[in-house]
Amino acid sequence: MIWDYDEPVAIRFGAGRIAELAEAIRSLGGTTCLLVTSRHFVDDGTAQRLIDQSDGVITEVFSDFSPNPDVTQVDACARLIQAKGIDSVVAMGGGSAMDLAKAAAAIGASGGTITAYHGTGVPVPPKHLPLIAAPTTAGTGSEVTCVSVLTNRAEGRKAPINSDVFYPAIAIVDPELTYSMPPHVTASCGMDVLSQAIEGYWSKGHQPICDALAVHAARLVFQWLPLAYAEPLNAQARAKMCEASVIAGLAFTLPKTTSSHACSFPLTNLYGIAHGEACGVTLDYFARINADAADGRVRDLAQSLGFGSVSAMADAIHELKVRIGLRCGLADLNLDDDDIADLVRISRHPNLYNNPVEITDAMLEEMYRDLALRDPRDGCTVSEGSLQSRRREDALACAGEGKGM
Amino acid sequence: MIWDYDEPVAIRFGAGRIAELAEAIRSLGGTTCLLVTSRHFVDDGTAQRLIDQSDGVITEVFSDFSPNPDVTQVDACARLIQAKGIDSVVAMGGGSAMDLAKAAAAIGASGGTITAYHGTGVPVPPKHLPLIAAPTTAGTGSEVTCVSVLTNRAEGRKAPINSDVFYPAIAIVDPELTYSMPPHVTASCGMDVLSQAIEGYWSKGHQPICDALAVHAARLVFQWLPLAYAEPLNAQARAKMCEASVIAGLAFTLPKTTSSHACSFPLTNLYGIAHGEACGVTLDYFARINADAADGRVRDLAQSLGFGSVSAMADAIHELKVRIGLRCGLADLNLDDDDIADLVRISRHPNLYNNPVEITDAMLEEMYRDLALRDPRDGCTVSEGSLQSRRREDALACAGEGKGM
Repeated sequence: MIWDYDEPVAIRFGAGRIAELAEAIRSLGGTTCLLVTSRHFVDDGTAQRLIDQSDGVITEVFSDFSPNPDVTQVDACARLIQAKGIDSVVAMGGGSAMDLAKAAAAIGASGGTITAYHGTGVPVPPKHLPLIAAPTTAGTGSEVTCVSVLTNRAEGRKAPINSDVFYPAIAIVDPELTYSMPPHVTASCGMDVLSQAIEGYWSKGHQPICDALAVHAARLVFQWLPLAYAEPLNAQARAKMCEASVIAGLAFTLPKTTSSHACSFPLTNLYGIAHGEACGVTLDYFARINADAADGRVRDLAQSLGFGSVSAMADAIHELKVRIGLRCGLADLNLDDDDIADLVRISRHPNLYNNPVEITDAMLEEMYRDLALRDPRDGCTVSEGSLQSRRREDALACAGEGKGM
Repeated sequence: MIWDYDEPVAIRFGAGRIAELAEAIRSLGGTTCLLVTSRHFVDDGTAQRLIDQSDGVITEVFSDFSPNPDVTQVDACARLIQAKGIDSVVAMGGGSAMDLAKAAAAIGASGGTITAYHGTGVPVPPKHLPLIAAPTTAGTGSEVTCVSVLTNRAEGRKAPINSDVFYPAIAIVDPELTYSMPPHVTASCGMDVLSQAIEGYWSKGHQPICDALAVHAARLVFQWLPLAYAEPLNAQARAKMCEASVIAGLAFTLPKTTSSHACSFPLTNLYGIAHGEACGVTLDYFARINADAADGRVRDLAQSLGFGSVSAMADAIHELKVRIGLRCGLADLNLDDDDIADLVRISRHPNLYNNPVEITDAMLEEMYRDLALRDPRDGCTVSEGSLQSRRREDALACAGEGKGM
């Protein structure tokens, strides 16, 4: 087996460690630092608290960006970096703040515009400012990845840019920063963590270091997400979910995600379902579809997580969704045939091809039709018998198309 | 819980990947590269093969060093680096080649002598040449650590130096490089891997990323070491042991090793027992001593490895040693009271204080007395009953000294 491993981000984990921020900036040679954070953290005083604690090292704040940050916002941040002589960047927030800051720290140093690299395949130049990432959700894992997901609203394009220059130098993972996440955000972000871990494990791009980390992260989500959801101030549950999030980030960034992430994109873009919740909608489906794939690796995963079978793991994913108020079906969307055809078509994202089983349009259509009949709050366990027979039918349909599974 | 994680080494794993060496050197900006390797690989033609494949990038070879490399050899290598205008270094070999190259790549760039930093506590200057490490044993894990263990024979001192500048930029882990290891070396190196993984897990310095990696590595050793020992050309067994070795390297380098490594040093230095074999001598003893320590973490480890109890894990370590021809006792050394007193005294290495249970002199003495009566090839399973009672006696002795366990 051939595999690579690259993970240059230094992780500093623990409650209260955001207090080490100024020291971390200085350790990277920073003296004139920009804080990128959302308006929420400006309004609630968190940004000012960090500035006050920074001994004058943080000199500017940029918060003029939206969820799914736009390329124009990256360029505006890069211009601020240049105008103010900024030498280092801190991103405190969820995926949006971190992804914008990654791109701005590069363009601010190398000049030009991020649109030259967004969806163009042109590599981002190596020059960039040192970046510290402090996630406030658990989470996207963006603090340890080299990916920046940006949107070009003018051209109607949302796409990731991968570049080694996007790796933060330091990730400060302070669970206290996540205490203010409301329960529904905790649930959706936590389901994203579980999807990253499980999909990273069964991805065709799997490798052993990421395997070990994926198992660790997924086990933590099953154990601690319900408590973090029910008790937002439970320090242990928050810490365990932050641990799961940063470790899942390490686990999926090299193997990449697969089918559930591919199918999440139309659910988010067409119907506004939050990213992690959208991943979760199909995660148990794909667990059953992938059950026998990849030399029994999905069975090994289920066993490593303490489940007697892949089916039991899929049931546990379903039960977790019910328990933390995430949707299990799409009946409320009143999807018609055209809607389902759109979902199938837009699910053909590149990530789908990392799935260990080839996913045909027929499989996607059957899955979405089943979901279209299901109540979002459907608490009943999926019948294994019906899915077994469905898997066999899919296999036949697939063989009929000459593609195999 | 508070923890850090730093692992800047890019890993390139797979059979045949040493063929990527020239490309890897060039990716680091190297054009005039020194190959550090043992005389063995010069004599068998491997060094020349690498030079021939390097498109002229490897311009010099240094092989004038011994096992347990001496500080004078580091300085000689550094002078060669300076004299020949070397801009990058490749270390191909076991721990000796890699540890010497780490130090020489730093001193060759910054000037001076390694003795200024060996055992002095003075930090190594940041300037250093980029280093590629290609291990030929599975192994020391040195390819992913920032430690260089050097000896100053003139002053009778063997000690590690830790420095961030010692991290290789790239580790090329090519299982084919390990095919020529003879069975006894395979066995001893493999036991080192198991000790690193298990001790890294139960170390007081444990942290979750290393926990997950330690479990992965230890599981591989139990599964594959007997086959790698019995069939040196078994490609799968060699690859799995290389995977175990590099992942155990990641797993122990931050938490550090503990009691078995501490006790290995006198066994190696006084009686010439190979490092990994020496670690293994006491590993099952310490498993039993640590069984109930650290909030049940050692029990968790045993369970994660598929054992019903810590005692069953300790039995499996013992059985593994018997199966791969490693010593289980010290009776052949004919140790007298003075020898045992020396062993106890010299076992008080700093690593001993990472052990999750406080290890008293009385515990060490009892362990060494027991080992002194045991045949090195002792194939009988250690009686759990006798060890249980021994543990209780240790606890009493320990309580009597007012130290607790």
